[in-house]
Amino acid sequence: MEFLVRTENTLPPDTPDDVREELRARERERAMELRAAGVLRRLWRVPGRGATIGLYEAADPAELHDALVSLPMWKWMDITVEALATHPQEKAP
Amino acid sequence: MEFLVRTENTLPPDTPDDVREELRARERERAMELRAAGVLRRLWRVPGRGATIGLYEAADPAELHDALVSLPMWKWMDITVEALATHPQEKAP
Amino acid sequence: MEFLVRTENTLPPDTPDDVREELRARERERAMELRAAGVLRRLWRVPGRGATIGLYEAADPAELHDALVSLPMWKWMDITVEALATHPQEKAP
Amino acid sequence: MEFLVRTENTLPPDTPDDVREELRARERERAMELRAAGVLRRLWRVPGRGATIGLYEAADPAELHDALVSLPMWKWMDITVEALATHPQEKAP
Amino acid sequence: MEFLVRTENTLPPDTPDDVREELRARERERAMELRAAGVLRRLWRVPGRGATIGLYEAADPAELHDALVSLPMWKWMDITVEALATHPQEKAP
Amino acid sequence: MEFLVRTENTLPPDTPDDVREELRARERERAMELRAAGVLRRLWRVPGRGATIGLYEAADPAELHDALVSLPMWKWMDITVEALATHPQEKAP
Amino acid sequence: MEFLVRTENTLPPDTPDDVREELRARERERAMELRAAGVLRRLWRVPGRGATIGLYEAADPAELHDALVSLPMWKWMDITVEALATHPQEKAP
Amino acid sequence: MEFLVRTENTLPPDTPDDVREELRARERERAMELRAAGVLRRLWRVPGRGATIGLYEAADPAELHDALVSLPMWKWMDITVEALATHPQEKAP
Amino acid sequence: MEFLVRTENTLPPDTPDDVREELRARERERAMELRAAGVLRRLWRVPGRGATIGLYEAADPAELHDALVSLPMWKWMDITVEALATHPQEKAP
Amino acid sequence: MEFLVRTENTLPPDTPDDVREELRARERERAMELRAAGVLRRLWRVPGRGATIGLYEAADPAELHDALVSLPMWKWMDITVEALATHPQEKAP
Repeated sequence: MEFLVRTENTLPPDTPDDVREELRARERERAMELRAAGVLRRLWRVPGRGATIGLYEAADPAELHDALVSLPMWKWMDITVEALATHPQEKAP
Repeated sequence: MEFLVRTENTLPPDTPDDVREELRARERERAMELRAAGVLRRLWRVPGRGATIGLYEAADPAELHDALVSLPMWKWMDITVEALATHPQEKAP
Repeated sequence: MEFLVRTENTLPPDTPDDVREELRARERERAMELRAAGVLRRLWRVPGRGATIGLYEAADPAELHDALVSLPMWKWMDITVEALATHPQEKAP
Repeated sequence: MEFLVRTENTLPPDTPDDVREELRARERERAMELRAAGVLRRLWRVPGRGATIGLYEAADPAELHDALVSLPMWKWMDITVEALATHPQEKAP
Repeated sequence: MEFLVRTENTLPPDTPDDVREELRARERERAMELRAAGVLRRLWRVPGRGATIGLYEAADPAELHDALVSLPMWKWMDITVEALATHPQEKAP
Repeated sequence: MEFLVRTENTLPPDTPDDVREELRARERERAMELRAAGVLRRLWRVPGRGATIGLYEAADPAELHDALVSLPMWKWMDITVEALATHPQEKAP
Repeated sequence: MEFLVRTENTLPPDTPDDVREELRARERERAMELRAAGVLRRLWRVPGRGATIGLYEAADPAELHDALVSLPMWKWMDITVEALATHPQEKAP
Repeated sequence: MEFLVRTENTLPPDTPDDVREELRARERERAMELRAAGVLRRLWRVPGRGATIGLYEAADPAELHDALVSLPMWKWMDITVEALATHPQEKAP
Repeated sequence: MEFLVRTENTLPPDTPDDVREELRARERERAMELRAAGVLRRLWRVPGRGATIGLYEAADPAELHDALVSLPMWKWMDITVEALATHPQEKAP
Repeated sequence: MEFLVRTENTLPPDTPDDVREELRARERERAMELRAAGVLRRLWRVPGRGATIGLYEAADPAELHDALVSLPMWKWMDITVEALATHPQEKAP
């Protein structure tokens, strides 16, 4: 099933640049693994903010939760999830 | 998977009593079928309101959607759904 | 550019079934045209509600506006739009 | 009587892992005691967040309050409680 | 147990005065019965609005719900309920 | 005149227990004085939270303000006040 | 004591002009009486809206409520009231 | 001084097309007059909605109010206004 | 023109009393200057909070902004401003 | 395309004045570059707050995002962006 996932970055602004960059690099690496595993399908930026909107696919909410918690930035993200229902139009021939 | 489902009754207050009662009877009948099918697991009233909180189980959000739409009151209900993730504590021996 | 579009159906519950069905059929037909034109990319249902979340692509907000207004249900929809920024991860090799 | 209880974890992200783990272990232990006592009936995770939704049973709001305050994490949780009314359907034969 | 109950009057402004007065009289009569039964303990007006704040006492939320539904104005009131926990100070000698 | 007063405790969770206890003892002492003076009439806990709902009586909002500011916890409380109007039912014989 | 009073006009847009004008004239007349009685002290418009912000003075919230209910537009106004506390600066020599 | 003005169209969806078109034509005509008078400076559409964001210039809020009320659609618009302060950067050489 | 100005004090509760008192004294001094200059016309306390509601008069929003920034507490205040339109009733003979 | 951009300054109030001034000077310098590049078109202050409303022009949301991130204050700003659709009136002869 698919989920719409919003993240807001809550990392304090005074975080040293090297810590920030190291976190970002690890975050990107883990995100790429989730893409490879078919869990993270699309990712957008909310313009102007340290925030993203993502389209995820997982077997159920618990599996999605585990994927999001596995992100190195998780402790510094405010995340909200919406479960999406497939629309009949999507199955149109 | 489980869902927390809130409903707010939006039936106009001037609905004739017989229409209201007939809808309520059909609603109850369909709800009982959903219970028998294992879709509706628990139902509570929000005290003081024409509103309920329900615990549902369905294969995915689309199946839940179909179950809710099948309720005779659906057109007169404002419904919000939260997908629930199983908590590890629930699996404790 | 891409947009996240939410719609809430505000059609009165006492709309006659034939009017409702005729609108729905025309809505679906127009949506299919927008899909064919590459404007409507994905569509999901918000479970439990007469509501959708869609992923659209258009040259700019004015073109998106025209596409949404062309939907037969437009007068009975409360629509909110978010402009999405491409995330650098999407361009990763 | 039953209560729907939401918790949001407000523990600072820079809490040392050992402090966090020790708190989590004690929290789990106390939660298990509340389950054994019939106070905590069900627990779910809100996917993506350090948050839970729980179904509790207590004689009255004061007894529920005491149960929640007894959780080791209480000082780092933002908790909201809704009192639930039994729905007549639940008594159906 | 005690409950804080807010009501907002949603009776349409064009309700004929005699209907309004007849409803108000019946509402008052029923409220007085609830006072006599010890269910309605205090009642205040929210200044400037057709709204009240009441202190109720009932065995549980279901009993409170039945009391509120018994009010003739119930279909034209938007009601919200908060369950109150006795504060230890109240038991002070 | 009467006021409905909500307080949310904003004392940091890492406040040392002795500071917390000393504040709580002084708070209780002052609250008891306000009770004796007829200013604090009733006090409830919002279940699950470091929060209260109180019924106060004071000559006017300025006098109420002075009473609330006199509470030792005042600097660590987020307080909201509603002025209540006496309901005609309360004067019923 | 003083109150800040906000009103939002909820008169339906299709109200005939003569009904609207007659109501407005009576509203103005009653407002002028409240000014003469020292109850309505200042009145502003919220620019762009059928809405006002007023400064009222009354012995208590119940007296203010009676003054507001006496306005011919009352049934078509959504009103919110804030009780104001005199600021010590106002008493400065 | 400048104002940011948001409008939401509240015209009922079942308004006959000729009434709607006639209103729209008169609205446009009046808007063009306000442009010519230097009151309406810029106008944008909120994509997907019958809503606009406008930049207005007027001597004061009362003059702006009169300009907005002069729009034929005014009774069917929910309008909010923000007064803007000139930013020092705007005066930079 | 007139403005309604709300302030919320955000000074940390652990600010030393002498710093707090020194700020308050300077704040009062500057407020008195703004009164003498006809900028600050009325000031009220929001009961129970470190918050005020003020009636200001200034040539335009930029002048008001400068007056508010000149307050020594400005950096520790969350301020919201509403521009008020003179109501025709105020000009009544 | 055009965007309406709101910023709220979240720089801690206890930031040393020289750090604050240095940031402000660099912010102004970068803003002037964005003006010269045709990205920042207009800028207003929200009166009373460390907040701005700006009119920006950029090829798409990603380009706007890059412009906003290039501001030295970016880490200390809470930014929200609205994509604006050109209104047909703007093209009127």
